[in-house]
Amino acid sequence: MKTDIEIAQEAVKLPIKEIAARVGMTEDDIEPYGKYKAKISEEFLQGLKDKPAGKLVLVTAINPTPAGEGKTTTSIGLADALNRIGVKTVAALREPSLGPCFGIKGGAAGGGYAQCVPMEDINLHFTGDFHAITAANNLLAALLDNHIQQGNELGIDTRQVVWKRCMDLNDRSLRNVVVGLGAKADGFVREDHFAITVATEVMAAFCLANDISDLKERLGRIIVAYSYDGKPVTAKDLNAVGSMAALLKDAIKPNLVQTLEHTPVIIHGGPFANIAHGCNSVRATNAALRLADVAITEAGFGADLGAEKFLDIKCRQAGLKPDAVVLVATIRALKYNGGVPKDQLGEENLDALKKGIVNLEKHIENLQQYGVPVVVTLNSFTSDTEAEIAYVREFCNERDCDFALSEVWAKGGEGGEDLARMVMNTLNNKKSNYAPIYPLEMSLTDKIETVSKKIYGADGVVYAPAAARQLQKITELGFGDLPVCMAKTQYSLSDDQKALGRPKDFKITVREAYVSAGAGFVVAITGSIMTMPGLPKRPAAFDIDVDENGKITGLF
Amino acid sequence: MKTDIEIAQEAVKLPIKEIAARVGMTEDDIEPYGKYKAKISEEFLQGLKDKPAGKLVLVTAINPTPAGEGKTTTSIGLADALNRIGVKTVAALREPSLGPCFGIKGGAAGGGYAQCVPMEDINLHFTGDFHAITAANNLLAALLDNHIQQGNELGIDTRQVVWKRCMDLNDRSLRNVVVGLGAKADGFVREDHFAITVATEVMAAFCLANDISDLKERLGRIIVAYSYDGKPVTAKDLNAVGSMAALLKDAIKPNLVQTLEHTPVIIHGGPFANIAHGCNSVRATNAALRLADVAITEAGFGADLGAEKFLDIKCRQAGLKPDAVVLVATIRALKYNGGVPKDQLGEENLDALKKGIVNLEKHIENLQQYGVPVVVTLNSFTSDTEAEIAYVREFCNERDCDFALSEVWAKGGEGGEDLARMVMNTLNNKKSNYAPIYPLEMSLTDKIETVSKKIYGADGVVYAPAAARQLQKITELGFGDLPVCMAKTQYSLSDDQKALGRPKDFKITVREAYVSAGAGFVVAITGSIMTMPGLPKRPAAFDIDVDENGKITGLF
Repeated sequence: MKTDIEIAQEAVKLPIKEIAARVGMTEDDIEPYGKYKAKISEEFLQGLKDKPAGKLVLVTAINPTPAGEGKTTTSIGLADALNRIGVKTVAALREPSLGPCFGIKGGAAGGGYAQCVPMEDINLHFTGDFHAITAANNLLAALLDNHIQQGNELGIDTRQVVWKRCMDLNDRSLRNVVVGLGAKADGFVREDHFAITVATEVMAAFCLANDISDLKERLGRIIVAYSYDGKPVTAKDLNAVGSMAALLKDAIKPNLVQTLEHTPVIIHGGPFANIAHGCNSVRATNAALRLADVAITEAGFGADLGAEKFLDIKCRQAGLKPDAVVLVATIRALKYNGGVPKDQLGEENLDALKKGIVNLEKHIENLQQYGVPVVVTLNSFTSDTEAEIAYVREFCNERDCDFALSEVWAKGGEGGEDLARMVMNTLNNKKSNYAPIYPLEMSLTDKIETVSKKIYGADGVVYAPAAARQLQKITELGFGDLPVCMAKTQYSLSDDQKALGRPKDFKITVREAYVSAGAGFVVAITGSIMTMPGLPKRPAAFDIDVDENGKITGLF
Repeated sequence: MKTDIEIAQEAVKLPIKEIAARVGMTEDDIEPYGKYKAKISEEFLQGLKDKPAGKLVLVTAINPTPAGEGKTTTSIGLADALNRIGVKTVAALREPSLGPCFGIKGGAAGGGYAQCVPMEDINLHFTGDFHAITAANNLLAALLDNHIQQGNELGIDTRQVVWKRCMDLNDRSLRNVVVGLGAKADGFVREDHFAITVATEVMAAFCLANDISDLKERLGRIIVAYSYDGKPVTAKDLNAVGSMAALLKDAIKPNLVQTLEHTPVIIHGGPFANIAHGCNSVRATNAALRLADVAITEAGFGADLGAEKFLDIKCRQAGLKPDAVVLVATIRALKYNGGVPKDQLGEENLDALKKGIVNLEKHIENLQQYGVPVVVTLNSFTSDTEAEIAYVREFCNERDCDFALSEVWAKGGEGGEDLARMVMNTLNNKKSNYAPIYPLEMSLTDKIETVSKKIYGADGVVYAPAAARQLQKITELGFGDLPVCMAKTQYSLSDDQKALGRPKDFKITVREAYVSAGAGFVVAITGSIMTMPGLPKRPAAFDIDVDENGKITGLF
């Protein structure tokens, strides 16, 4: 069996100007980065604003399991399939981070015969957007520490610096550090932390910004520290906004690439789906919507995190209206949710499937609460049996969801044609009555309780004393009308990562809360959330190589 | 008077494919990055190897002063001027670092009417090379700490980790840090340091590598730490080479841009000129030499640092033979060397000029020791008087150096035609008998003494006990036949930055020494050398901005 990178490297790629031409862009509308990648020019993007929007389809999934779900692969294969059946479709996806690429997870440009290419470039640096975000984040940190060093006019309390430095790598040693050691000229000593770039507020603000002016306003609002008298100190107070935005001037232009079947794909931005909102940039989604009749987009982790934030944060902030949601599951993952160990997922087990399908059931109910029609798809494995598939199909149909098997991993767009037809059936026959699950006027605690009860299925919320105090302060500072961004384990609907299926009789514990004023949400942290991953004993990096012709191997 | 960025933004740039066409490259030979930047493809570079090389001209300068010398500006203007008088010329220059850009110094793409464009892009990220180097450097650090965390099979002594993390920013707070704080899962606590990316060994190795295979060998040799039993631990031991090289696969391709007058310029790599060798990449210089009849290149700081390393390290390692050296001075800087305070440099002062010209004299003598013909140029200021210029001209002619005034800052290539003719006179009529100043077989201490005496004019060398011990150990480890890379203040020929002119009766003190086995040199540190600069009270970052159309302002 061929590896992803082998399939990707065998692909015949079209020059990016030909891909651009497919959706009406001339050579002047794009800025090429090599032969197969391009940024979409600002002028062209501005011109799109008045064009009518196509239909918006979100791809999300059940809670992730070690069995794998294949959300990105499904998104890509579905876009290919829609084009195959004659529906002009563009996908808008997230950019991969270098961290997982060299760690455990590998790349993130799809898999099998449903991939974006050039796969190596997309996974390694791409057009440099994340490096620009890293630089902007760290320039702000340098200006902050320099302000303290040069007299600290703003009275920044070094015990209350909340801004972290970042790096787009997995590096556990940087989670907790002390900076400023040495002599007088080497700064004030203080505790500091590095996050992975995708977990930063610059990334989140970047992804939610409509344009460079909006981005500058968002950057300016970022709170980096509190002063000795308890006042927030912002990036604007530090005079950092102009130079941060200058670093991001090219990064903010969405990137155009293609699938193996030459479907145009816009890959742009990639915030974490726990402490941030887990969706590609608003600009990418808006561009895709205006370049095609159907735009496919995705959100990170399971529907309880990614879709909830897509619907309550991104769509609300950006004025987007989703027309349908595709919910991805696998027979293997459902059986895993039903208690089958990882090494026995290949055997037919209808009892376990029936037990585990409650996870899918809850996600269907959740999405329907938003008024958006749901299509369920099973990302097919050879071990799936007819009986298992039939059971899931009937389960979905009983719940007013179209259902289709997806074989895009093995067959590319052809393997997604059934799904594509079901998606079109839903788009043509079911009306979306999208509305967020809570109004912004609700108090922060009521918003947290609404998400916890309605989406997670919790009985209630417990606040650690620190979290209660922080939510109180955030409200006093005037941020009570922001949406909440829940940071929760992706593995369970609850905040206990071991509680699979559809947990009942539990409470959500909020340990900590802070405001991401630039992104425009309040983060509520439940359980322990890692903002800087570590490397495993045998990192994926060990297998990656490049030969004398620049050909990459070992990337998966 | 227009600012550099205003001049650059008013320029009519040619599409980069037209610039490429001027030196025989087709659209297939380049990989565009936007409309005005491109990387040269690996296939095209390989094809160049068999082509005859043009003449190689190095641009260097007297010791830098606050008055400014204008080495890069002169290099660019000279290349424009040579093309104007009919000599096919390409320049090979260094990439700017983001650190100085947001700190004090500003950008580094030339000045006035002798600039490379797009100036904003070259100064901000450019094609992402430095970010790739940063990522490769920090991936190695993460793999190193992960190795220790996961059992430390190689027995790395955490007190003897010599690898530093890096960032391409000025950030004093990162000079001395402690990493690995927190819990067991957060790594071993140890002292660490961040360098600016341009000061890293990855940068130096990258710039000296002939191709990706050579780069991989160099990366593999990098010593990151010593084990408890005193053995060096390399990047190869950590299995880091393949993934580091994969991160650098595009970065290693030289970048093509243009001057305001459409002269092709290859800008690639940019190591510090103190702890590293201060020259653009070997690949860029080799490409320029094969694309043109004359290739202009430069080296950082004054001739005692940049030119010495160009001649003793880069040319020797890469098999390059320089045909002439252009030595840049200014009347103002010579008067400053003669004791005139900064605010009185605008007044005619022949006595001070005569006193300060000894600095120029010593650099002429030094370059002639290498057997390379020298052309001296004065980067002209309006305050220079006829008498002052005449004095310098005669001084140079008496020392067998062609001389020309350069007005490229104010007039572009036209202002460099006299210089261009003098350079051609030298190239056509004077033979280069280039040889390094010391043979590689010499002991490390003899090499250090040779440079100190012959180039700096010192009486001898004093070794701190630690340095003597380190040089002994480096020799025992088998690195005694590497060239030495002196890390010394750029402001003086001596290691005392206040000793201007031509210091006498002094000794060089070597405080520390280490081997950069991947770069292929032994660094000898004299005085205190900063590998992570700080920001001033009012950083240049405060003035930089970008408007809603993506137009950058305030970059200088």
